[in-house]
Amino acid sequence: MERTLIGELGKHVGKTVSISGWVDVRRDQGKMVFFDFRDRSGVVQGVVLPGSAAIEIAKEIKTEYVVQVEGVVNKRPEKNAQADKQNGDIELEIKGIEILSGAQVLPFPKDEEVNLDTRLDNRPLTLRSARDRAIFEVQAAIADAYRDALAEQGFTEFQAPALVGSDAEGGAAVFKVDYFYDQNAYLATSPQLYKQILVGVFERVFTIARIFRAEKSATTRHLSELTQMDFEMGFIKDEFDVMAVLESVVRSTVERVGKEHSDAFKILGTEVPRLGKKFPILTLREAQEKVGASGDDMEPEHERKICEWALKEHDSDFVFITKFPTKVRAFYTMADSSSSTGESRGFDLLFRGLEINSGAQRIHNYDEMVARIKERGMNPEKFSFYLQAFKYGMPPHGGCSTGLERFTSRMLNLPNVKEASLFPRDLNRIDVLLSKNESDTVPD
Amino acid sequence: MERTLIGELGKHVGKTVSISGWVDVRRDQGKMVFFDFRDRSGVVQGVVLPGSAAIEIAKEIKTEYVVQVEGVVNKRPEKNAQADKQNGDIELEIKGIEILSGAQVLPFPKDEEVNLDTRLDNRPLTLRSARDRAIFEVQAAIADAYRDALAEQGFTEFQAPALVGSDAEGGAAVFKVDYFYDQNAYLATSPQLYKQILVGVFERVFTIARIFRAEKSATTRHLSELTQMDFEMGFIKDEFDVMAVLESVVRSTVERVGKEHSDAFKILGTEVPRLGKKFPILTLREAQEKVGASGDDMEPEHERKICEWALKEHDSDFVFITKFPTKVRAFYTMADSSSSTGESRGFDLLFRGLEINSGAQRIHNYDEMVARIKERGMNPEKFSFYLQAFKYGMPPHGGCSTGLERFTSRMLNLPNVKEASLFPRDLNRIDVLLSKNESDTVPD
Repeated sequence: MERTLIGELGKHVGKTVSISGWVDVRRDQGKMVFFDFRDRSGVVQGVVLPGSAAIEIAKEIKTEYVVQVEGVVNKRPEKNAQADKQNGDIELEIKGIEILSGAQVLPFPKDEEVNLDTRLDNRPLTLRSARDRAIFEVQAAIADAYRDALAEQGFTEFQAPALVGSDAEGGAAVFKVDYFYDQNAYLATSPQLYKQILVGVFERVFTIARIFRAEKSATTRHLSELTQMDFEMGFIKDEFDVMAVLESVVRSTVERVGKEHSDAFKILGTEVPRLGKKFPILTLREAQEKVGASGDDMEPEHERKICEWALKEHDSDFVFITKFPTKVRAFYTMADSSSSTGESRGFDLLFRGLEINSGAQRIHNYDEMVARIKERGMNPEKFSFYLQAFKYGMPPHGGCSTGLERFTSRMLNLPNVKEASLFPRDLNRIDVLLSKNESDTVPD
Repeated sequence: MERTLIGELGKHVGKTVSISGWVDVRRDQGKMVFFDFRDRSGVVQGVVLPGSAAIEIAKEIKTEYVVQVEGVVNKRPEKNAQADKQNGDIELEIKGIEILSGAQVLPFPKDEEVNLDTRLDNRPLTLRSARDRAIFEVQAAIADAYRDALAEQGFTEFQAPALVGSDAEGGAAVFKVDYFYDQNAYLATSPQLYKQILVGVFERVFTIARIFRAEKSATTRHLSELTQMDFEMGFIKDEFDVMAVLESVVRSTVERVGKEHSDAFKILGTEVPRLGKKFPILTLREAQEKVGASGDDMEPEHERKICEWALKEHDSDFVFITKFPTKVRAFYTMADSSSSTGESRGFDLLFRGLEINSGAQRIHNYDEMVARIKERGMNPEKFSFYLQAFKYGMPPHGGCSTGLERFTSRMLNLPNVKEASLFPRDLNRIDVLLSKNESDTVPD
């Protein structure tokens, strides 16, 4: 019999169907056995009635067994119906079960709340929880909405390289790779230089790229491998053109995810972010005045306070901060020539207390770019490939980059960005704790 | 005045417009100067007439200058119209030009045919050629069509990690990374193990991931960093279910690219691939008999011959080869239990003479997987994370992976797969030749 997806069972009331999936929950009630079955489309309750031919095999089956089940889709009596639950008004009366794969006894129920290290140690199991499935369905939807919004505005997608030839910016936070013939390569910390080169080719480009940060940070905001959603666009007037595109992309992403994944917000116990009429924009100085801070950048606690302000005053979970000092921004950032205090055309976008995006108008003039590189004590020769783009005509341009994991974590109010990475890598962990990689124990 | 995209000029005949873009070509004809201007939407011819206020600045402007141009869109007299060219029936009569960015003298015209090393040395310039823009617009379209086709069939996208913790399969062709605290990490050679883990979560998953191959191969088919389009699906009957999904994805991708990018095929001087009624399927033995070959795998020349046969006999540029020996396939490949000669459930898809996809049904039983790992002389403890997926219930499943650069290169009949990578990395090159990375010369 052909497989019916669990999400489609409501259309087959009174019919005999065959479903395939995992045993999500098993409840033994004396002579009857109840199951919740799970497949990619949802969950349904099944029951093996006393005297059923399936009762013997049903007793053998445990949680996470993979099964193929034949049964009749019955309407539940009204008093037993659960209106707010998928398939809450039906039940599968099980006639036969075939075991496709067994499962060992779980170390803990997959939906149980356990500490983060335990969750990560058991990732192949814990990702099956309703909570984690919701997180990564939302993440997939964010990536998709981001791409669609940019493609609609004439942006071309590109594949950014992860291996780079020199640690050009001289940062300590770069991973080194043993390349061919004893040469070194490095892991990209951003697709920045490549997307600027491509502005010269396609004018408007975007990528979703893996990038790598060797910072020894063990905060709730850091990962050593992450996914960056970057775009860059030519022929802008100034950084506000970039911010306008970013705002339109973020708005359509939040609206779409809110509409298509309302279940996920329920499961995570949070609300769809507020978008207000327009994201408020504050200069760094204005923001600092509001929270009684100073300095060249925002501290995490000030970012949280400014977001509280934006939500209260503008009904917006997002707020732009502009005019960061040029000296604290990347070398390619354009200075604001109208500023006498060294302000740049760089901006950040904060979302529910966290910086999720950083961007700027960039320098486009070749001589200015070479001068800036030298000013920063770097060697322009190391940038010779990149500089070709500027030698051969570059329009005024700018762009920005959004951390996908940070965006996901703020969208769903997750306490730690690691929860928004399927397989997070950090100081101590690549899948398993690093100290365990060399272990010799043989699994049971 | 607001910017009009060059691709939209046909709607503004008789009007004064402002365009922005690059000088694609400049032709000086005594008292008049002709330009082709280029932006992300296309190309148009402009002319500065004798006596125009713009004539002085026009004389200064060279190829690849970035300009903003005001002018009147004129219909061309019929005898001068070029029907087969974008905007071939109009011309911009230039009233004013503003230079947004200058450009140095080009080392060679960007559309000139030069050897591959020169093209790659000058990539930021050569990518601006009509040929390269066509290649990477097609590549973006392939990625997009691939994702859409899978999403429509219930697949969830995921972000695959590039850093892995141990060189689990023990291949020599893996790049080593200096990770934190003198520990080693490695660059992923495939998202395989992760996508199988995710079959346990989402049942059907796909990713477009960067992967890394440290093979010392300098052929026209190899790159050391490439883009892999992977999918994996649960609840299959056998590998033919995977092949059916792959064929549907490839068909819709080729059809969409053929329709939306017919210009690219013209520019590259090639034809949209033939799809026949159904991709022919040959076992390895059948294929070898047709070309007089033997052994456990196909040689490049035999792959080419079999593709010639498929095109001639089935009007198809694609052909599946099945039943490769289990011993030459990856450890997780399921053996064909009906075969007495050690055949597996693995397959390849060939496209215009080249293998572009490799896939299989996989082992899903935990004990069988552990036994296979030991059989191959590997340590199951190194796979403990991966093996959790099998411990806790894994459905029969399979999947495959397509090299995006190989697919692009065959789609457009490019002689070398490096041409289908924006910034190819190989034995000797990461952007520039590796020997040049340590140079001390200062650029002019």
